[in-house]
Amino acid sequence: MGWFRAASGLARVALRRNLARAPANPFAGPAPRYFHSTRPRRFAAPVPRAVPLSRLTDSFLDGTSSVYLEELQRAWEADPTSVDESWDNFFRNFVGQAATSPGISGQTIQESMRLLLLVRAYQVSGHLKAKLDPLALEERPIPDVLDPAFYGFSEADLDREFFLGVWRMAGFLSENRPVQTLRSVLERLEQAYCGTIGYEYMHIPDREKCNWLRDRIETVNAREYSYDRRQVMLDRLMWSTQFESFLAQKWTTAKRFGLEGAETLIPGMKEMFDRAADLGVESRGRLNVLGNVVRKPLRQIFSEFSGGTKPAEEGEGLYTGTGDVKYHLGTSYDRPTRGGKHIHLSLVANPSHLEAVDPVVAGKTRAKQYYSNDLDRTKNLGVLLHGDGSFSGQGVVYETLHLSALPNYTTGGTIHIVVNNQVAFTTDPRAGRSSQYCTDVAKALDAPIFHVNGDDLEAVVHVCELAAEWRQTFHSDVVVDIVCYRRFGHNEIDEPSFTQPKMYKIIRNHQSALEIYQNRLLESGKISKEDIDKMQKKVSTILNDEFQNSKEYIPNKRDWLSAYWTGFKSPEQISRIRNTGVKPEILKRVGEAMTTLPENFKPHRAVKKIFELRRQMIETGEGIDWAVGEALAFATLIIEGNHVRLSGQDVERGTFSHRHAVIHDQETGEQYCPLDNLVMNQDEELFTVSNRYEL
Amino acid sequence: MGWFRAASGLARVALRRNLARAPANPFAGPAPRYFHSTRPRRFAAPVPRAVPLSRLTDSFLDGTSSVYLEELQRAWEADPTSVDESWDNFFRNFVGQAATSPGISGQTIQESMRLLLLVRAYQVSGHLKAKLDPLALEERPIPDVLDPAFYGFSEADLDREFFLGVWRMAGFLSENRPVQTLRSVLERLEQAYCGTIGYEYMHIPDREKCNWLRDRIETVNAREYSYDRRQVMLDRLMWSTQFESFLAQKWTTAKRFGLEGAETLIPGMKEMFDRAADLGVESRGRLNVLGNVVRKPLRQIFSEFSGGTKPAEEGEGLYTGTGDVKYHLGTSYDRPTRGGKHIHLSLVANPSHLEAVDPVVAGKTRAKQYYSNDLDRTKNLGVLLHGDGSFSGQGVVYETLHLSALPNYTTGGTIHIVVNNQVAFTTDPRAGRSSQYCTDVAKALDAPIFHVNGDDLEAVVHVCELAAEWRQTFHSDVVVDIVCYRRFGHNEIDEPSFTQPKMYKIIRNHQSALEIYQNRLLESGKISKEDIDKMQKKVSTILNDEFQNSKEYIPNKRDWLSAYWTGFKSPEQISRIRNTGVKPEILKRVGEAMTTLPENFKPHRAVKKIFELRRQMIETGEGIDWAVGEALAFATLIIEGNHVRLSGQDVERGTFSHRHAVIHDQETGEQYCPLDNLVMNQDEELFTVSNRYEL
Repeated sequence: MGWFRAASGLARVALRRNLARAPANPFAGPAPRYFHSTRPRRFAAPVPRAVPLSRLTDSFLDGTSSVYLEELQRAWEADPTSVDESWDNFFRNFVGQAATSPGISGQTIQESMRLLLLVRAYQVSGHLKAKLDPLALEERPIPDVLDPAFYGFSEADLDREFFLGVWRMAGFLSENRPVQTLRSVLERLEQAYCGTIGYEYMHIPDREKCNWLRDRIETVNAREYSYDRRQVMLDRLMWSTQFESFLAQKWTTAKRFGLEGAETLIPGMKEMFDRAADLGVESRGRLNVLGNVVRKPLRQIFSEFSGGTKPAEEGEGLYTGTGDVKYHLGTSYDRPTRGGKHIHLSLVANPSHLEAVDPVVAGKTRAKQYYSNDLDRTKNLGVLLHGDGSFSGQGVVYETLHLSALPNYTTGGTIHIVVNNQVAFTTDPRAGRSSQYCTDVAKALDAPIFHVNGDDLEAVVHVCELAAEWRQTFHSDVVVDIVCYRRFGHNEIDEPSFTQPKMYKIIRNHQSALEIYQNRLLESGKISKEDIDKMQKKVSTILNDEFQNSKEYIPNKRDWLSAYWTGFKSPEQISRIRNTGVKPEILKRVGEAMTTLPENFKPHRAVKKIFELRRQMIETGEGIDWAVGEALAFATLIIEGNHVRLSGQDVERGTFSHRHAVIHDQETGEQYCPLDNLVMNQDEELFTVSNRYEL
Repeated sequence: MGWFRAASGLARVALRRNLARAPANPFAGPAPRYFHSTRPRRFAAPVPRAVPLSRLTDSFLDGTSSVYLEELQRAWEADPTSVDESWDNFFRNFVGQAATSPGISGQTIQESMRLLLLVRAYQVSGHLKAKLDPLALEERPIPDVLDPAFYGFSEADLDREFFLGVWRMAGFLSENRPVQTLRSVLERLEQAYCGTIGYEYMHIPDREKCNWLRDRIETVNAREYSYDRRQVMLDRLMWSTQFESFLAQKWTTAKRFGLEGAETLIPGMKEMFDRAADLGVESRGRLNVLGNVVRKPLRQIFSEFSGGTKPAEEGEGLYTGTGDVKYHLGTSYDRPTRGGKHIHLSLVANPSHLEAVDPVVAGKTRAKQYYSNDLDRTKNLGVLLHGDGSFSGQGVVYETLHLSALPNYTTGGTIHIVVNNQVAFTTDPRAGRSSQYCTDVAKALDAPIFHVNGDDLEAVVHVCELAAEWRQTFHSDVVVDIVCYRRFGHNEIDEPSFTQPKMYKIIRNHQSALEIYQNRLLESGKISKEDIDKMQKKVSTILNDEFQNSKEYIPNKRDWLSAYWTGFKSPEQISRIRNTGVKPEILKRVGEAMTTLPENFKPHRAVKKIFELRRQMIETGEGIDWAVGEALAFATLIIEGNHVRLSGQDVERGTFSHRHAVIHDQETGEQYCPLDNLVMNQDEELFTVSNRYEL
């Protein structure tokens, strides 16, 4: 019978293709293999092969109706458009339905369900097939669930049409083209999920957030940047690359923990800040990249490398405690952005154990938000740079993540950038962590994670921008994992081949990200050789000029302090003894305020007693205990307008049930904080006390 | 037209039900609400209401075929069995197909896909609807994705049949009953995922592991324990409960950090050990439960509570460093199991910051495995008890989890039990962590997580057994989160109502788990009042006898040390100065061995040089540097048969490129460890050096 051959004949109806082909690029590799291997599959359901329709229809396809239907069928097989649309639908569906085991509804339903599972598998696990590693060191096994054969499809099905757009989902399932060939479905899935970006977001339980991402991942076909954008990106990558090679050339034996192998980080971050500024961010960022993003003056950096810093002003006490090695210093800068705005960047100083600054940055960001009245936390943004080893190895990362959504700790979302050199110091990732990626802990906090091949500049820029958009939209953490490599050793006098000989054999012959991007632009005719030469010349001229200037550079003693701390005094200036006491009548006044509870508030019997005793101490001035003394100290700071913040394990009540900074109505559960109510209309954040949850 | 009404008429075909109803229990609550609320749904797809078939078929249902089909249809509508099975299928599918928007294939496919999404939603998020909290404090919002209306289903669809079993999946989808009513699908999903156990496993990327769990979650209908098992469980719960009340009665003001509110932990752990012993475990466990699981002698515990410990033997040096408070002490015991085996339990001593022992337990377990030649790590099992606050609050939890699958650190899976009192010390969970559950970090490590209502003894036992089975099957970590409460304060002299008044109002009126279980067994006639009284009497008699015995109890100085450490000497015994030196010829011999590289091995040029220099030092005895001194120390320990283990950040090469304990062939990447090759056929774990990944 001809009924069944029709199923594949159907597919000859050409589909409108609005899939823009991505521009040729070195990451595309060979055409994707949809069918993976011939290894036995435990759960692979074999496709039921064409069951002759006769087995189902013998009993009714007889007489006139049979003849009539057969005629229609033949006409439809020859040309589906020759029959009425309703008949076309009928044949399509009926033919599909009839193919499976006899006696129950059929193959189309099964196939559609399997196809849906296949799409979800790409959404969940497509990143496992993405081309993330510039060195292509490890062949990652492609999971079975990404193999169409696992769902019973074969090569012969590639050009058959399937019905898929059932579900009101964002992304390409949502488009108004419900019938697609398997091939076109797979092409789009591969393009969206298996390029040089690996998206992890299906762990996020919020449907709206998933749809927001799906929309951006699945429907944005090709990232086509304009000539101008590309020129800016290229220029930034040149700066990043030449800065390092200039240092290497001038100070051949100095340790600088160079960025070689991860140079796209710089343009990525710059574009991220540009995008963030477009979306309202005005300030912040902790970067370990002094010269290029935060723009510490080059002459200053060069001067420090030369080891020659002349004293600032004689006589005045210099800041102590900053005498750390140069790559540990912080700085700050007001940077103009692509969109014509300014963004204030400040880099905190950090010790060798980089993650130690995580909570410091969170705290500084929170403080900035408080002092700049940034109520919705969109103007001040914290950015953390991590290493792959430290992100998976240090508990403080986990502890800081767990602060991220707490009302008294949140900063409205931190952008985490992992500079993933795939080796940390000398250790292979497989011997260093127990999870697939170094970033997996962020899944526990429902943060999206964008893994990106650090050699693909435009992909790096794309995910950095996406991270900024996410943060400004959902006010929560997001992770960018730039998979790159470390061209030299841990520092420049370290020999990486001792421990990673094979990796470094590959690295030695690997083009830099700049070379890759230049070639890509040249090959596609997007930029000329002359343009590139001109840009490069400009960069090297400036570097050389600044190097000359550095010889006469006189450091400003406040270089590493950000604008807000201008009035900050050096230890010498503040170390003289001052009288910090207040008059007894002030103590009495605040003492009364802090021992007064609201009318109708029902404290615990014992707490009521404690507050009565405290009131007595205030009135008589006698028997004042530690808790009252502490509260008086806080209270007098508060009425002078100082922000007082207390945080830690169970600080509200106090470990030994002594503080009672927050008390609880025994009937309603309502909370009352006496130190929040010292003056009329007191700003509720002026005094902050907040439990941590540790025990 | 009659076409459409038929769709629901179809469902009158009764389905064979093999759903055994779960026994009546207090957690069942009212019948599950499948449809959740009337709040607007952003992505809810409205059901396309019955589109008259005529709109699709007008153009072909004419002439004789039309008449013929209409007759068949009427017959089928009246009685689906009156037509041939093939026509029955045709009508079912066609009627389904035709119901949706005109012009494209139809509703049956859509509905099936939606149903599949609904099933997956239960597998992923069913735990959010589970009845986990004994206090039912917080009404958790039920996610939209668990609402059939979200998928376009209405009450009217409950008794319609759907085709679902398409996919070769374990669990109830796999059973051989492809057609089910929506109601029966929902019933089974609710039963499996929304009872007193909340399963989280869909984050595990391994399909086989998911199917293993699905099989156990979805197809085990009712957990029916035998009379004997129930009696054992009840007895164990009585011990757990009465032990605490006995202590409270005898020492009313002593701090004991009692287990009240979490008493099911004890029977849960006991059953877990029984199951683990059935599956091969012979030893280990870190428990903070002295008397009941590890069986520290009651008389000894009671004696310690009374503060009266008489000195053991005069003259001999006692162990120092163990003078900690009693609830911090460790102990060990050989416990007989339900299955007639013995399991050796040892409890490590721990400080107040409980999680500090996590890596200690992992290390001790690993050591036990090494010394007992437990090659597949199935005989020695590490168990960690956590608090909810500490599990989400302390970075060492994360760091320990990241060691769990590393070849040189794995113990073949730790069982984590979180005693989740929902308050830690005085802090509400919402103010203490940024994720849904305190256990979410375990998702990053692909561990399954079983949340369980601590009031449901049988459910606690079930997940504890399942955890043991998981560990013995997949040799990886698993988490049991017992959601319970803390009946009294942080300790017995602490007043919890100060900070959690509403919670403690509920707790005061809340039945104990023992009362709940007793009532449940009595009501279902599973046990008699007399049996219960007899059991209770036995427990209290023993407690009282042991209390009397405790007055004469003389502590054994080695009580807290486990069998393996019998030869361990006290500080006084080992503090005299001994000669640990070895003869020069031995140094020379091992020195030669450790500076010899295999033939054909190609070290890095510089490393080759280093080894040549080392050989020279050994031969001449001159200029021996720190690295050679260290290596000689290790080597001489090793040849005496001592296990030497070095672990930490980049210890293999050494931070300053000085150690080179592991060297790398520059061509093949092969590794060679000289200290592994000091004697013939040296046990390869005798010397272990292993990088950690932190920087």
